Amino acid sequence: MTADLTAAPKNPWALSPAGAAAGCPVAPSSGRLRPLGVTDVHITGGFWARRQQVNADATLAHIEYWLEREGWLGNFDASREGRLPRDRRGREFSDSEVYKLLEAMSWELGRRPDPALEDRFAAIVARVAAAQERDGYLNTNFGRPGQAPRYSDLEWGHELYCYGHLIQAAVARARTHGDDPLVAVARRAADHVCDTFGPEGIPGVCGHPEIESALVELFRVTGERRYLEQASLFLERRGHHVLEDVEFGRSYFQDDVPIRAATVLRGHAVRATYLAAGGVDIATETDDGELLGSVSRQLRNTLARRTYLTGGMGSRHQDEAFGEDFVLPPDRSYSETCAGVGAVMVGWRLLLADGDPSRGDLIERALYNVVATSPSPSGTAFYYTNTLHQRELGTVPDVGRVSPRAASSLRAPWFNVSCCPTNVARTFASLGAYVATVDDDGLQIHQYAPVHIRTQLPDGRPIAVDVETDYPHSGVVEVHVRGETSARWTLSLRVPSWARQATVEVDGEVWTVGPGAAVISREFIPGDIVRLELPVHPVFVWPDPRIDAVRGCVAVQRGPEVLCVESVDVPEVDHVDRLRVDTSVQPTERDGHVVVRAVTVDLHDDDWPYRDREEPAAGGAGAEIRLRPYRDWANNGPSTMRVWMPTA
Amino acid sequence: MTADLTAAPKNPWALSPAGAAAGCPVAPSSGRLRPLGVTDVHITGGFWARRQQVNADATLAHIEYWLEREGWLGNFDASREGRLPRDRRGREFSDSEVYKLLEAMSWELGRRPDPALEDRFAAIVARVAAAQERDGYLNTNFGRPGQAPRYSDLEWGHELYCYGHLIQAAVARARTHGDDPLVAVARRAADHVCDTFGPEGIPGVCGHPEIESALVELFRVTGERRYLEQASLFLERRGHHVLEDVEFGRSYFQDDVPIRAATVLRGHAVRATYLAAGGVDIATETDDGELLGSVSRQLRNTLARRTYLTGGMGSRHQDEAFGEDFVLPPDRSYSETCAGVGAVMVGWRLLLADGDPSRGDLIERALYNVVATSPSPSGTAFYYTNTLHQRELGTVPDVGRVSPRAASSLRAPWFNVSCCPTNVARTFASLGAYVATVDDDGLQIHQYAPVHIRTQLPDGRPIAVDVETDYPHSGVVEVHVRGETSARWTLSLRVPSWARQATVEVDGEVWTVGPGAAVISREFIPGDIVRLELPVHPVFVWPDPRIDAVRGCVAVQRGPEVLCVESVDVPEVDHVDRLRVDTSVQPTERDGHVVVRAVTVDLHDDDWPYRDREEPAAGGAGAEIRLRPYRDWANNGPSTMRVWMPTA
Repeated sequence: MTADLTAAPKNPWALSPAGAAAGCPVAPSSGRLRPLGVTDVHITGGFWARRQQVNADATLAHIEYWLEREGWLGNFDASREGRLPRDRRGREFSDSEVYKLLEAMSWELGRRPDPALEDRFAAIVARVAAAQERDGYLNTNFGRPGQAPRYSDLEWGHELYCYGHLIQAAVARARTHGDDPLVAVARRAADHVCDTFGPEGIPGVCGHPEIESALVELFRVTGERRYLEQASLFLERRGHHVLEDVEFGRSYFQDDVPIRAATVLRGHAVRATYLAAGGVDIATETDDGELLGSVSRQLRNTLARRTYLTGGMGSRHQDEAFGEDFVLPPDRSYSETCAGVGAVMVGWRLLLADGDPSRGDLIERALYNVVATSPSPSGTAFYYTNTLHQRELGTVPDVGRVSPRAASSLRAPWFNVSCCPTNVARTFASLGAYVATVDDDGLQIHQYAPVHIRTQLPDGRPIAVDVETDYPHSGVVEVHVRGETSARWTLSLRVPSWARQATVEVDGEVWTVGPGAAVISREFIPGDIVRLELPVHPVFVWPDPRIDAVRGCVAVQRGPEVLCVESVDVPEVDHVDRLRVDTSVQPTERDGHVVVRAVTVDLHDDDWPYRDREEPAAGGAGAEIRLRPYRDWANNGPSTMRVWMPTA
Repeated sequence: MTADLTAAPKNPWALSPAGAAAGCPVAPSSGRLRPLGVTDVHITGGFWARRQQVNADATLAHIEYWLEREGWLGNFDASREGRLPRDRRGREFSDSEVYKLLEAMSWELGRRPDPALEDRFAAIVARVAAAQERDGYLNTNFGRPGQAPRYSDLEWGHELYCYGHLIQAAVARARTHGDDPLVAVARRAADHVCDTFGPEGIPGVCGHPEIESALVELFRVTGERRYLEQASLFLERRGHHVLEDVEFGRSYFQDDVPIRAATVLRGHAVRATYLAAGGVDIATETDDGELLGSVSRQLRNTLARRTYLTGGMGSRHQDEAFGEDFVLPPDRSYSETCAGVGAVMVGWRLLLADGDPSRGDLIERALYNVVATSPSPSGTAFYYTNTLHQRELGTVPDVGRVSPRAASSLRAPWFNVSCCPTNVARTFASLGAYVATVDDDGLQIHQYAPVHIRTQLPDGRPIAVDVETDYPHSGVVEVHVRGETSARWTLSLRVPSWARQATVEVDGEVWTVGPGAAVISREFIPGDIVRLELPVHPVFVWPDPRIDAVRGCVAVQRGPEVLCVESVDVPEVDHVDRLRVDTSVQPTERDGHVVVRAVTVDLHDDDWPYRDREEPAAGGAGAEIRLRPYRDWANNGPSTMRVWMPTA
């Protein structure tokens, strides 16, 4: 069946940043929860504020530098000046990195005004706009004499994918600034897409999903229904073998099975998560419970069988793809940074649609352990892939060179395929928008950080709360009610699945709450404090026995953070692979570090690594070894590292 | 340093199949052992005779059919008729498959005359020869108007690689038949290569090694020193970054480090083993102990750290490459069939060079568990990759279609890259040549099968022995001395590393012999029987603890055969992943099958596959489950399978 577009409610928002969708990357017309944008939620301190600061101060400029240096920005000038294809540089999708920078800049400008950044933004938009053709077509890699014709390679060409990111950038701009030259460029491009790929047009889809979500969001911004219709058309076409069966098979770009029939995410992990996000968007706008249920089921099975402990998705290097169920090797785990962003995108959309607070667990896990792992502390070097086991000392990438996307074990300044740095930047700049939502009853807080929330409920009642916390260092989260709100309302606080003995305290009364949400309904008055305490002490985690690659191993988790042992922290051991963890002694904290007890085993080289007897068990009393958050590994140069540690 | 070519001994063989090199794929001028060719060693029955029969009766015709059908043979006709590049079909290296078929046919014709096959062979040679250009250049993919220029893409173009296989085919023909149009074609091509890539020519190498060994062998056949010099030049150039650093890094084609400085095989496994084989060939002809020592060390480290239990090499799908040390995941193990052939090539050359009988262990392991795994019983479908763990039921490849090389879990008739079927065919047809060698003292038998050996020692004394055995079903190998040989000579019989309690019996006297070789020196007379008994009972094998992917698992080996559990043999269990082997009970044989005791565990699906407590150990008395030789898996259609089984 196809989506019933006639069931879609009227779009409630105008093209103004002041509406209910202000500052929101995702703003559905319906659904269980309503998002709050970066304009309503300000992260004021702690872990994520520091990450946002580095992103604003260093990463945006770093990306702009490399886009200039590698000529990916220059491609637009070359187009204007008629120097294409001669002077074309970069891969077929390089335009999209420019758009993702514009999106990141838009969120950043929405977070806090910055005239200098505003000028840089406008300058880039002008260069992009000048390359747009009269009919709205905009791509520096196709269509000119000497280039492949427009839309001649839907499998690999990424033209629609690039529009998707252009549109997302424009949506970010519209929702933080209002109408703008970038919005006009994106609308012309979207109109061109509808003209070209509509019911009477090219019956194809893009090899890389992304346009689907983008068109829905542009519909939400503009009220233009044909964008939604086109998004739905793209979604429904896919899965019927409309793309050529090139290199990695049709599941690679989710053209193997229609989205409604699929049971699990598969193929290229970024493509899969982006498509799932688009599916939720369309289901929400068309009130399509079947479609929503399908994506929800796919995500559930993916989390149960195809996701790393970090929330990372995709285990294969060859095709950047999900493996089969339970194929989750820690060494050479792919776990692309962008798939972490994709997991956040899907989780957030489902959370808005069905209100299930556990969606926030996935978002938190992926943010702390995948997205935050990618950038260096300086914000100027990145992981593209995120391995969970580093066996050999890596080599430091040349800061002056473009790196292969997955070759190094250390963060690199830029890649030949450089989707991850820009994806991190746009996610970090919009992070405030993933913290909290409202519904008719009240406020839901999904992510814990020091924030100021100033918003209103759908009925207009103002809500003002400040969150004070040192989370995840501490498990104590205090919500201070600041503003008067007449009548009773409900505060919901997510209780993560790992929090078995959480408590919530209001007015001296303490309750124990299980995973899900702590829900407090009352007539709050200024000065009220709701105090949630989550047990963030370190614990062992054991894998499902079907994950063969980590049999006999444990990991350690502390709150939302996955930990690891890194060679720089255990200089007394010549290789982390020699460690065997004693699980009879619980992990604990010592001098601000998590420690576990471990013994070391002797490893001896033979001519042949298969023997007719079992290795003797490790003995000895052992010693405490220090762990660190996984995301902080390799901050001190080449090292070896393990997340999953064999048990003694 | 470079090879001292002046030290090379005079080539002792003329261009005649009757010389000491008759029927030999590899015929060094010096070295510890002298090979015996397919003309001297006839496999008369048993496992390998059946494989040779299927190869001759079915596989050669199957390959010829697909080469015609896919147009890879037709490319030569298209060249002659001026229809290139318009009518070119197949990948850049498709010419080489035609040459490998010619090599397989040559060995087959050397094994037993077959006028019809002789005609088919001659017809193909004529089509190939007609495409050769006046200056000796021969490649259907380059150099014509509309094609890329000759040698414009040494990284990926495979032109020299194709010559390598052309030359190997000609060597096979020369050593089984004598001079021939194919030999003339190969000589013209080799001369062209020397003219083009000599000291004053293009200072490059081929992205895929193969020409090195081939040129040395052609030197051995013809006595033409420039072929040896050119091979040495190619070998010494490589490793100095002479190729562009394309997609997978320089180690991919072993251009990262000079061969003398390397310590382990690395990069693309077929390229790595072919280059190592060439290194031994050149070292042997130039008496270069340093080079020989380097390759020997590389193989030792590769066997100790980078080889599957099956002898398979290469664990990565992405670049068909060796992983880092101990990265040997059984699911999606690549273990390309051609890398198994490459392992045989390197092992055999080192065995001839240094006489170390344990080289035969690798050859045996790779032949039984990799090369013999590839073809179906019918000889008309093949594995390209050889996984050690099949998690999901695969799909049966369409017998009428070309398969992607690594997509299916079932054998496919042909691949878009179809190097493996032709490699299996040339190896099987020449298998007799890997059975035995001679030296000044006597005869060495390296592989056990029913064979007739009729040869002579270097001093001219005739040797005639028959081997009678049902190996590897039985461990009893009887060597019957048939012919009179004046004076004492020595019979050496390899004792594999897994044979801890082997015995040898002569004239009623019995000795226990350890791994290495059983050596019997005496004045043998006709009717003498030497009886070797190898303990081929099934045993558990445990992995080195650094092979993380199989921690907590055992495999079972029976003699040279690696076994597996396949779902078709355990219909009482719904998935092989549920089995836990009880290692307190030794594997045994029951009704002609190897069985182990195992319990089944319940596997339950959760929302998240990481838990705060360990899975309870499997309980119950268990039951016997049946194993089968790994090479025979999937002979009965889609199934799941494990070589490495978790322990209870």
